[in-house]
Amino acid sequence: MLIKMTVEDFAAEVASSSPAPGGGSVSALAGAQAAALLAMYCNLTFGKEKYARSEALLREILAEAERQRLALLAAVDDDTRAFEKVMAAYKLPKSTPEEKAERQAAIGEAFKEAARVPLAVCRRCVELLALLEKAAGAGNESAITDFGVANLQAFAGLTGAAYNVLINLAAVKDAVFVAECSAELADLRARGAAAYEKTLAYLEQQLKL
Amino acid sequence: MLIKMTVEDFAAEVASSSPAPGGGSVSALAGAQAAALLAMYCNLTFGKEKYARSEALLREILAEAERQRLALLAAVDDDTRAFEKVMAAYKLPKSTPEEKAERQAAIGEAFKEAARVPLAVCRRCVELLALLEKAAGAGNESAITDFGVANLQAFAGLTGAAYNVLINLAAVKDAVFVAECSAELADLRARGAAAYEKTLAYLEQQLKL
Repeated sequence: MLIKMTVEDFAAEVASSSPAPGGGSVSALAGAQAAALLAMYCNLTFGKEKYARSEALLREILAEAERQRLALLAAVDDDTRAFEKVMAAYKLPKSTPEEKAERQAAIGEAFKEAARVPLAVCRRCVELLALLEKAAGAGNESAITDFGVANLQAFAGLTGAAYNVLINLAAVKDAVFVAECSAELADLRARGAAAYEKTLAYLEQQLKL
Repeated sequence: MLIKMTVEDFAAEVASSSPAPGGGSVSALAGAQAAALLAMYCNLTFGKEKYARSEALLREILAEAERQRLALLAAVDDDTRAFEKVMAAYKLPKSTPEEKAERQAAIGEAFKEAARVPLAVCRRCVELLALLEKAAGAGNESAITDFGVANLQAFAGLTGAAYNVLINLAAVKDAVFVAECSAELADLRARGAAAYEKTLAYLEQQLKL
């Protein structure tokens, strides 16, 4: 499993000439780091008199951020596994018409799965961007840069996963599947960008960027 | 060392209630992942007839990307260490006027270092954004999403590290140091944003985003 590798070995594996792990796994990891930083922002707030009125809200947000952190870490491996299935499908035999048909079907299914995994990452990153928008200003001011980096990583995770949805959808022939995924992706990107921009505006005001 | 932790343990450590590692280390790691993905884009291009004319350019870019990957991984730990020095300085004794003066000086120096480390991360991320702009279109088209995620992570790394420069500069009283760092940071952010936007425009055209 990729998430059992050390941080430096994972980066070396990304850099290597093997086609996986790549941008899909890195984008899922960016989402997981966003969730981790949002959790940290909550954890650094609890028990401080000044923020007592935010405790209930941030307890809820923490629970959700922790759920997203674990799910996005799992997606780091899911993405690479989905990509490996695409490569395996291409290697299926294609000597007879039956084999050719089976291989084409397997390739089509593998690309669908390779689109579904980053689409799920997009959903989770948008969820995180919405949580960040809710949490803005509620937590410990001294962790505001951690909060801000969470916003950056959630948006980069969303956008990077969206690239991976698009490139894999381009290889899928099932027009209904492509239309459904494309519509959902466009909606996710619009909602994610709106939340990201709002939090960015809040941060610029706070940090005098 | 943080980069000797597993990927999942590192994320759990970020999420915890300890104030470090936080957004500074995560931003350095984002830069390292950008460098890794750029290296991957180069490595997946070499030896392919279609891209033979790009080989010399991408060999140079690979060497620089690999240098940046290792330096940015080191910065993951540097950032947390600098933050720990700030916390240690606050804990120095302050019973006598001499102790108070020594403590104030130590705090000032620690904040300077805590600004210098993310400023160096900003420089490296801008370097990567410039390399990405140079490499656009030269490498293996089938790795275009990896290339695109490199652009996203380098920009998120730059911006997140900039937040950390700003928050630490706010605690530094040496006006000359603050002015010099602020001027360099503004220049880096402007150059980084320009390169990022150019690569983004290239990607949008390629991926029909």
